[in-house]
Amino acid sequence: MAGLPKSRLPMTLHSFDEAIALTPRDDNSFTGCTSPAYANMVGPFGGTTAATMLQAALQHPERLGQPIALTVNFASAVAEGEFEVHARAARTNRSTQHWLIEMVQQGQTVSTASAVFAQRRSTWSRPEAMPPEEVPAPETLRSADTSRRPAWVRRYDMRFIEGGMPEPFDAVEQPHSRTCAWVRDEPARSLDHASLAALCDSFFPRVFIRRRKPAPIGTVTMTTYFHADEALLAAQADRHVLCCARAMNFRDGYFDQSAEVWSDSRELLASTHQMVYFRE
Amino acid sequence: MAGLPKSRLPMTLHSFDEAIALTPRDDNSFTGCTSPAYANMVGPFGGTTAATMLQAALQHPERLGQPIALTVNFASAVAEGEFEVHARAARTNRSTQHWLIEMVQQGQTVSTASAVFAQRRSTWSRPEAMPPEEVPAPETLRSADTSRRPAWVRRYDMRFIEGGMPEPFDAVEQPHSRTCAWVRDEPARSLDHASLAALCDSFFPRVFIRRRKPAPIGTVTMTTYFHADEALLAAQADRHVLCCARAMNFRDGYFDQSAEVWSDSRELLASTHQMVYFRE
Repeated sequence: MAGLPKSRLPMTLHSFDEAIALTPRDDNSFTGCTSPAYANMVGPFGGTTAATMLQAALQHPERLGQPIALTVNFASAVAEGEFEVHARAARTNRSTQHWLIEMVQQGQTVSTASAVFAQRRSTWSRPEAMPPEEVPAPETLRSADTSRRPAWVRRYDMRFIEGGMPEPFDAVEQPHSRTCAWVRDEPARSLDHASLAALCDSFFPRVFIRRRKPAPIGTVTMTTYFHADEALLAAQADRHVLCCARAMNFRDGYFDQSAEVWSDSRELLASTHQMVYFRE
Repeated sequence: MAGLPKSRLPMTLHSFDEAIALTPRDDNSFTGCTSPAYANMVGPFGGTTAATMLQAALQHPERLGQPIALTVNFASAVAEGEFEVHARAARTNRSTQHWLIEMVQQGQTVSTASAVFAQRRSTWSRPEAMPPEEVPAPETLRSADTSRRPAWVRRYDMRFIEGGMPEPFDAVEQPHSRTCAWVRDEPARSLDHASLAALCDSFFPRVFIRRRKPAPIGTVTMTTYFHADEALLAAQADRHVLCCARAMNFRDGYFDQSAEVWSDSRELLASTHQMVYFRE
């Protein structure tokens, strides 16, 4: 930002932009640093890791088009502190571009990712899935108390319609693990593909909701499909988005999660899927 | 197979095993060749490409555990003929292993993939989603006529409950794009992770079902979660599995597909997601 005239500098950078900031090191690599503002119980929030991986492609000089898909594999715990991100356009076609991205600490791979970018054109378009009917407006709901949660949770304003964090954990098993909530960055920040990538990892673990008891868990891989282009995200601005998640199956140490993020005008912004390790 | 005594050689290899066969070239790379038996309209069936990528990790001497997740990015059309597959264990942990896999032709990347493998242990397990109730048994349904389809379609026995290929394409737009069908390899072959990975790409394009008209399409990325371990797949043997697919959104050149593959004892074997390019 050194080159920008002072009048165009934001007064303070949003903590999310600080968390995903990357400094170019050479043609295909960047350095970054985990942010205490997005700390999780161990290491940083996976959502900021995902957004940082996407950011490496987004700010790469060879980047063409907008993100269509992002898969992030959480290969090991990321340590607090510095990291390198290596990003390579493995293939550039007329309208699509395929990226391979790797995050490295102390010479070891801690996360891998692939991203598909595309130049989108106007075509026949139709929704097929719809968001839940008649959900209460975010203004009518209480923000979840995040004061005793890890730092990253306090970076979101979450207003649960169903399936919030069980309080207390009473170990009464539920018939399903569904969550539906209005969520936005805290403080408010205009939605873009990077913040949407992070938001897609902001759901509490499905096994906590289903069993109403905590367990050691870790997302091993997450895939997000971006249905929204920049214009649609810009139209959503910094208002709450509707986030709905569920699991299909818990078996032998792994469960899945599928979720959707909807605009407040009922447009699908992202669909996202993950496989999560759990113990016990 | 040169080293095997003759009595242990199968009489004939299944055409699927021929299609995904890889010859080790050095520690981290293999050579293979597309199979006319699984040809698509242009190049090979994406399902065999996906299975071949997984196969590189499955037969790698460093491989630990069983597949949990596979993401394949179809970076460009694969040409008929030879290819190389490069596979690298980017990270090996106590119970998980993260693979990066690349398919190359003429020095160009044609496909990239990541796979997560894990040693699964017995834990609390529960289904959450269920397959459709009261579907007719496969024996009571007619096999779809695949005689005029690309070669790969004839490698599957497909028995549609709903959402088969529109015949004719009458351009009468449907309210949804759902498909439900019993499917198995043709000729029958015992299910394993490689054939399940291929099966997950055997759905006809959702936009064909929804619009009942053809269009240029191409899957750009596909992610499959393996809920089943080897024992559960072995129990399913070569009987038909129940495959159900739908889209959530068609917008500006891309649509998604989500699908599940169920055993005939109503166990979730795989859930699979893709983003697909379409024109017009």
